[in-house]
Amino acid sequence: MTAIRATLLANDVLRQGGAELIEQWDRVGNDLLWLDIQQPDEEHLEPLLEERFGFHELASEDTLSPNTLPKYDAFPGYDFFIFRAVDMNVSEHGSQTYKLAAFLGRNFLITVHRDRMQNVDDVCNRLPSDKRLLGNGPDFLLYNIVDLMVDAHFPLLDEIEESVDHLQDSIFKDAEPSHLDELLHLKRDVNVLRRQSLPQRELLNQISRGDAQFIQRQHLIYFRDLYDHMFRISETIDVERDMMASTMEAYLSVIANRTNEIMKVLTILSTIMLPLTVIGGIYGMNFRYMPELEWHYGYLFAIGLMAATTTTLLLFFRWRGWLGHRHGPHRRHRL
Amino acid sequence: MTAIRATLLANDVLRQGGAELIEQWDRVGNDLLWLDIQQPDEEHLEPLLEERFGFHELASEDTLSPNTLPKYDAFPGYDFFIFRAVDMNVSEHGSQTYKLAAFLGRNFLITVHRDRMQNVDDVCNRLPSDKRLLGNGPDFLLYNIVDLMVDAHFPLLDEIEESVDHLQDSIFKDAEPSHLDELLHLKRDVNVLRRQSLPQRELLNQISRGDAQFIQRQHLIYFRDLYDHMFRISETIDVERDMMASTMEAYLSVIANRTNEIMKVLTILSTIMLPLTVIGGIYGMNFRYMPELEWHYGYLFAIGLMAATTTTLLLFFRWRGWLGHRHGPHRRHRL
Amino acid sequence: MTAIRATLLANDVLRQGGAELIEQWDRVGNDLLWLDIQQPDEEHLEPLLEERFGFHELASEDTLSPNTLPKYDAFPGYDFFIFRAVDMNVSEHGSQTYKLAAFLGRNFLITVHRDRMQNVDDVCNRLPSDKRLLGNGPDFLLYNIVDLMVDAHFPLLDEIEESVDHLQDSIFKDAEPSHLDELLHLKRDVNVLRRQSLPQRELLNQISRGDAQFIQRQHLIYFRDLYDHMFRISETIDVERDMMASTMEAYLSVIANRTNEIMKVLTILSTIMLPLTVIGGIYGMNFRYMPELEWHYGYLFAIGLMAATTTTLLLFFRWRGWLGHRHGPHRRHRL
Amino acid sequence: MTAIRATLLANDVLRQGGAELIEQWDRVGNDLLWLDIQQPDEEHLEPLLEERFGFHELASEDTLSPNTLPKYDAFPGYDFFIFRAVDMNVSEHGSQTYKLAAFLGRNFLITVHRDRMQNVDDVCNRLPSDKRLLGNGPDFLLYNIVDLMVDAHFPLLDEIEESVDHLQDSIFKDAEPSHLDELLHLKRDVNVLRRQSLPQRELLNQISRGDAQFIQRQHLIYFRDLYDHMFRISETIDVERDMMASTMEAYLSVIANRTNEIMKVLTILSTIMLPLTVIGGIYGMNFRYMPELEWHYGYLFAIGLMAATTTTLLLFFRWRGWLGHRHGPHRRHRL
Amino acid sequence: MTAIRATLLANDVLRQGGAELIEQWDRVGNDLLWLDIQQPDEEHLEPLLEERFGFHELASEDTLSPNTLPKYDAFPGYDFFIFRAVDMNVSEHGSQTYKLAAFLGRNFLITVHRDRMQNVDDVCNRLPSDKRLLGNGPDFLLYNIVDLMVDAHFPLLDEIEESVDHLQDSIFKDAEPSHLDELLHLKRDVNVLRRQSLPQRELLNQISRGDAQFIQRQHLIYFRDLYDHMFRISETIDVERDMMASTMEAYLSVIANRTNEIMKVLTILSTIMLPLTVIGGIYGMNFRYMPELEWHYGYLFAIGLMAATTTTLLLFFRWRGWLGHRHGPHRRHRL
Repeated sequence: MTAIRATLLANDVLRQGGAELIEQWDRVGNDLLWLDIQQPDEEHLEPLLEERFGFHELASEDTLSPNTLPKYDAFPGYDFFIFRAVDMNVSEHGSQTYKLAAFLGRNFLITVHRDRMQNVDDVCNRLPSDKRLLGNGPDFLLYNIVDLMVDAHFPLLDEIEESVDHLQDSIFKDAEPSHLDELLHLKRDVNVLRRQSLPQRELLNQISRGDAQFIQRQHLIYFRDLYDHMFRISETIDVERDMMASTMEAYLSVIANRTNEIMKVLTILSTIMLPLTVIGGIYGMNFRYMPELEWHYGYLFAIGLMAATTTTLLLFFRWRGWLGHRHGPHRRHRL
Repeated sequence: MTAIRATLLANDVLRQGGAELIEQWDRVGNDLLWLDIQQPDEEHLEPLLEERFGFHELASEDTLSPNTLPKYDAFPGYDFFIFRAVDMNVSEHGSQTYKLAAFLGRNFLITVHRDRMQNVDDVCNRLPSDKRLLGNGPDFLLYNIVDLMVDAHFPLLDEIEESVDHLQDSIFKDAEPSHLDELLHLKRDVNVLRRQSLPQRELLNQISRGDAQFIQRQHLIYFRDLYDHMFRISETIDVERDMMASTMEAYLSVIANRTNEIMKVLTILSTIMLPLTVIGGIYGMNFRYMPELEWHYGYLFAIGLMAATTTTLLLFFRWRGWLGHRHGPHRRHRL
Repeated sequence: MTAIRATLLANDVLRQGGAELIEQWDRVGNDLLWLDIQQPDEEHLEPLLEERFGFHELASEDTLSPNTLPKYDAFPGYDFFIFRAVDMNVSEHGSQTYKLAAFLGRNFLITVHRDRMQNVDDVCNRLPSDKRLLGNGPDFLLYNIVDLMVDAHFPLLDEIEESVDHLQDSIFKDAEPSHLDELLHLKRDVNVLRRQSLPQRELLNQISRGDAQFIQRQHLIYFRDLYDHMFRISETIDVERDMMASTMEAYLSVIANRTNEIMKVLTILSTIMLPLTVIGGIYGMNFRYMPELEWHYGYLFAIGLMAATTTTLLLFFRWRGWLGHRHGPHRRHRL
Repeated sequence: MTAIRATLLANDVLRQGGAELIEQWDRVGNDLLWLDIQQPDEEHLEPLLEERFGFHELASEDTLSPNTLPKYDAFPGYDFFIFRAVDMNVSEHGSQTYKLAAFLGRNFLITVHRDRMQNVDDVCNRLPSDKRLLGNGPDFLLYNIVDLMVDAHFPLLDEIEESVDHLQDSIFKDAEPSHLDELLHLKRDVNVLRRQSLPQRELLNQISRGDAQFIQRQHLIYFRDLYDHMFRISETIDVERDMMASTMEAYLSVIANRTNEIMKVLTILSTIMLPLTVIGGIYGMNFRYMPELEWHYGYLFAIGLMAATTTTLLLFFRWRGWLGHRHGPHRRHRL
Repeated sequence: MTAIRATLLANDVLRQGGAELIEQWDRVGNDLLWLDIQQPDEEHLEPLLEERFGFHELASEDTLSPNTLPKYDAFPGYDFFIFRAVDMNVSEHGSQTYKLAAFLGRNFLITVHRDRMQNVDDVCNRLPSDKRLLGNGPDFLLYNIVDLMVDAHFPLLDEIEESVDHLQDSIFKDAEPSHLDELLHLKRDVNVLRRQSLPQRELLNQISRGDAQFIQRQHLIYFRDLYDHMFRISETIDVERDMMASTMEAYLSVIANRTNEIMKVLTILSTIMLPLTVIGGIYGMNFRYMPELEWHYGYLFAIGLMAATTTTLLLFFRWRGWLGHRHGPHRRHRL
């Protein structure tokens, strides 16, 4: 159900309430209005935006459509922005996406979002004690909201970086297909993040260059700061993508190495056992005339022959370097 | 056979009919004409376009050539556009491509397409009840058609994304070469899509910047919206291409892992069985003097020796971690 | 031996002949001259170009050097172009490259090429019947030649696409190193094509923007059309390069899969046979006291033991899913 | 604890001291001040920067935040820069990052850094003997500090290049998973370096184009030189990333090759031994009527049969080229 | 030891000599001076450049530093360039890099290089016979030197291309790790080449656009020609890098194929021999009651059983397609 919170700063007096405060505000006056609309439904929102405020139908459509990417459109008398935040549960690969649509005019800011956003609540609660937030103009208020949205990426990125590092460690300890599966899911998560970070970065770049009509010149530096943060975010995303690609290759190499190890054990044991089988087979033949069988130490001779063969093969393997050091799973060491 | 549908809006009266309506329309007057030509053949179309309307021969050639990519050309008195849509059967890798050529002037829109296009029919049928579509100018009519063409990409992309996800799951369950084959076909499909999406995105960018002569200034925002959609489409295509590349690597890794598993079984069983064969072989030798053969519990001793060898090897494998947990196909779990 | 064909359009009369026609043409008059020089040798060409026509030494050097890439240089009084076409025998990886150097002035066009070019001959033969070709100015004539050169890429690209598809099919049927070798050769071919397509595309872009001095404004649209074709060509080349990279990875995967198959057969047969050998070995031992040997059904017991072991192992393999379905080379099917 | 070093050049007299020197300096006068603040804490720094000098709160926040990337912001009356250096222990994959924030005005330079920086100390110590450093203006002093910071990258890059080369050699001698692990760590190190080098390069490019307000025109060439160095640094980083990717592939190939070698030994020995076992098995059968068993030279015949089989197989392997040359680990040679 | 060669063109008289000629030249006059300095040492060069000619200290530092990349700096009264050439011994992976620093003014050219450069000597020797080289101005002289430096890349690139082709052939014939090692060295070589080609290309682009102060307008076309060559060089480098990446993948595939081959031989021989061993083992058991042992043709029966088993297995392998065609190393053929 559409929930509306209104904040009105008139003659230095700040009042917070519901939709009824809109009536006390005048578009051409100097009172400042912030309207925050949560969980909008079409039949309530469209009349409000298009009729009461006279916003363009495309803007109000973008406000309601769930997939719009970050963007800026200039309209006569107001600026229209879409910002996006993301809340990802990295370990469960569940992501929730937050979209904030904002209409910014000379003396008003209207923010629309489907879900409850902690960032908006925080700003809302700080308002009574810090009138400067709204007093500096609605664009400064917008900056404060977007600032919290942008900075929410950092703990997320840390978590992703940690997951990739953890996956690498797990793969070196004991690679299994589930790691790969995990990696592909992580990759999809990061792609979701990237797909909305790049346009958001571009949007903040555009704003900080002064393209928006109702961002005051002295506040551009704040949006430039947001751009710097967003730039750092998208750089980190690219680094993680790169590390994921390497991890996938590492997985393949670890598996190849393990096959190698197993092959070596098989080869060593087979090549030692097979000649012994042959010797056993020879002296198990039933020929009538086999001189060795009559020897008193024939049995000892056969056992000795087996021992000699084994020793020779072991020496061969040592020379080949297959026995010298084992690449067991327990002895990873640095160069 | 060339089919022509004409719609004429004269003095606020809307009439729909065939080619005969063209005669009632005057190029220099204020009546608005929409001509939709389906399944054009050269001998009918060229005279109509080049002689009746005076369009350039290159434009009429591009209209008929099946491979032209999205483009915009400005001619004196009219704009010429090529738009493309695609209808792909992802599971059968059959794709049908739709090309819409459009001539846009001050008071006319001429659209040409080979196949029946649902989008065009929809707009055509809505016209009588919603005169605003044509009343706002032929450029607004064009926007409505292209809007439907662009939005038709989204279900297609969802289907592709689902196919890639499904392939990944199948590969982790049971990789076979047919998956790879499927992947290569999917890749070719996506490449077809990409090859025409990028120029279309560029074309919409160009239009939304105001480059076209007969798109009215107040409608630019609508084409800007189409550009935003097209941007989202091409971003999604890139993400899918990336996921496909990862899937291919995953395939290789899954196969490598499986080889590994099989090798391990072979190695474990071989290295257990071979020593037993050797022991059997030794006591099967026919030497005259073999003390063990005479022992009363010689047979038990030999069986015991075999059991001891097997146990020792099993302990060795457990120490190596080859028995602890099996990476069977049935136990994929998250980290 | 240098062969010169001259075409002169004077007072609406078209004459074709050899070098002697040059004398009847006047650089400052309005007669139009086309000179086509085939198989040029340095000692004939340099005097003609540098002295008779006063062209720059760098232009005449570029005309003769076999490796020059497509380019445009503006000189006072004339434009200098290098265009390239390619004739590739895809199946034999033999490629022949055609270079066309063109000097374009207000009333003349001079084309120079080493080999016989079908495109140039075609235009030359159409001239007497279609005077418009030259009558529209030498730049329109140049367009007609280059148009044929550019369009010659399309059948080539189709052939390459077919080769890559065919290779993919072959690899899925029966991968062998010769396929890889073929792929690397194909890649080199495509690289040759790409290396000259990109500068040619750039060159046509430059011309269609109106950078060349002697291309008439009303003909720019024709060169823009060539640019569109060249753009499509280079896009297709990139798609094919991408498909080749995927094919190489597919090859590796198919081989890995095959190794897998073979390993599975080896493992299944070995692990069934080895226990039988052990059982045979045990009852082949010569101990004096082996109760089973005395049993009346001892032999049957041993055979039964063998059968039970085999059955157990087969059940194990079935549980592992190694017997359920075979990934033989004959049963590729879609998902 | 915040440590402040002040250097004041007044009337050609240079004095160095603590925070007390600030009082003797006048912002509108011509005396030059360099303030170097090490290990800043928020409660001391913010009043100093924001109140005493009137710097913007965003600048002072960026000064304290540890993660800011290199950037430039112009404020009325001063320029604000962030530069970064890195001190990496390549062999232990421990990296320490240095951030230098700089406020540059007409007659002052304020540098802030958390850790002790050798570069800054060096410049500080050279000041008394080389007054030109400060005499040329605070921007020249800044150049001298940044110059040392940039050049500190070169030994680091040499070390990384050496590590990669060393890893390649180790992999060709004896590939083990620890090499891969090492490679992934090295990659992360290089990514850290790259992430801060690119914006620093861009920053220096911006400065050298003359974008900063308080860099004197005649000193631009010095910053252009720094840009050239930074460009070389980022190029080298890219080359190393490329070499690392190749090394990873080489690792996989070396492992594959080794598996190959082991397989060959196993195959050769198995295929020689197995037929001998069969022959031994045949003549170990207990049939009553086996003519060969009665032959006087039956035993010799059997041994001869074994020798013949072995010889035949060895010839087969030689024909296959499996014995001709061994790819042992000790004989790497150039082509 | 610093070696100085001076060439002075005064009143159409050309004189060549040592450093003493500098004195006879006047910076503001019209005499043209070319100074070529080889093997410069700091204590001689700095006074000459900085004091005698008044060049900037940064330029003279860049002249001496061995690692500077190609660049252009404009100074009042002169242009400063760094060009680079490379002399690579592809087969031994030894590369020698040549750096040429050039100071170009209205009436002088000063070239500085550490090593003897054949190109410079060539131009120096041609000067007396071809005064035009200097008479056309010092910029034309510079063009002649750089032209030789640029064209020296072509034989080098041919050699690299040949090496890559040769490596591909070797890998298909008989892949060994030394090929990979060779490939990585070749890659490093090409990276060295690339790292200095790209800035050199950019530098020549800059010059040919007319950015340098003392390159005469009518000579720009010559530098444009150098740019075209450099463009071709860097394109070829990229193609070779691409081919190297493919070669590395091909190596892996060839090894995988070989493992496959070996596996197949092992599998075929093992699966034929193991059942025979089992049959031999069964009839070698010592049970008292084994009817077959008493049969008169028991032995023949056992041999027959073995033959039947072998035949069955061979038929199985043929059905599997493992015997039909062998992928031996000697039969590479085209598709």
